[in-house]
Amino acid sequence: MSAGRPRLRPVGVVHSRFKEPADLPPPAFAPPRFFETSTGTIEVAPAFAAGLDGLEGFSHIIVLFHFHRAGAAKLRVTPPGEKRPRGVFATRSPHRPNPLGLSVLRLLGREHRTLRVSGLDLIDGTPVLDIKPYTSRDRKSHIRTGWLEKRRRPVR
Amino acid sequence: MSAGRPRLRPVGVVHSRFKEPADLPPPAFAPPRFFETSTGTIEVAPAFAAGLDGLEGFSHIIVLFHFHRAGAAKLRVTPPGEKRPRGVFATRSPHRPNPLGLSVLRLLGREHRTLRVSGLDLIDGTPVLDIKPYTSRDRKSHIRTGWLEKRRRPVR
Repeated sequence: MSAGRPRLRPVGVVHSRFKEPADLPPPAFAPPRFFETSTGTIEVAPAFAAGLDGLEGFSHIIVLFHFHRAGAAKLRVTPPGEKRPRGVFATRSPHRPNPLGLSVLRLLGREHRTLRVSGLDLIDGTPVLDIKPYTSRDRKSHIRTGWLEKRRRPVR
Repeated sequence: MSAGRPRLRPVGVVHSRFKEPADLPPPAFAPPRFFETSTGTIEVAPAFAAGLDGLEGFSHIIVLFHFHRAGAAKLRVTPPGEKRPRGVFATRSPHRPNPLGLSVLRLLGREHRTLRVSGLDLIDGTPVLDIKPYTSRDRKSHIRTGWLEKRRRPVR
């Protein structure tokens, strides 16, 4: 492995009722609490199942995934509903220099190598690259959210 | 790019007073608020600087980085101060199947392509793979943190 250029491999896959990117409403336009009630599963490959031991005690998990359906990277993107382009690092757009996505999901339960989750905003077949426990250090109070604050709801 | 196996390249680098992994106290053993007061910078490569536009309005950022000094991946790890091994996905250990790390940092300011941050728990030279704005959807209330709850402080 060369420094800074890790070679990645999926450790699992998302099962979701959203089959295509077009099935996912942009979070800005989704009804209130839409994603909170969206459930699905993450199936971890058998070779990595032992890595899940102890995760069941956590209420939330951080899922890192590959934006496998993203097109070419852009440095500026115009989020849905916005008129003005923003730097891609100031958005959660999939069109990133490195197509890595992050979602914080509620962990409803674990059955061996399958995690039942809610808050799911990912499409079916999304390759999962990593799963981390959500800890108190990830929870920040008194946040400012820049250009998102002019909107009713945050945007991916 | 093959699906699920993104090829990654650094978009920036961390400048930190922690020069070696051994300089970083395990969060479990760090003095209270140790990391909150730890400052440094993230220098984004010139080619990606335009991607930062709009980020300055956010109080916190999510940094995805390469655990470039991590050794071989393990499925079970014994966190510092713990006796019992845990599944690696239930920890923030660097020894992961995909050596991807995540830190939520406070953004103190931006000068062109340099971000001043606090909460820094990364070593000097860490390759940065992505920067995302921290939004209200990343902030969860009423969390349970499994095996970490028996400790005074969370663990990387």
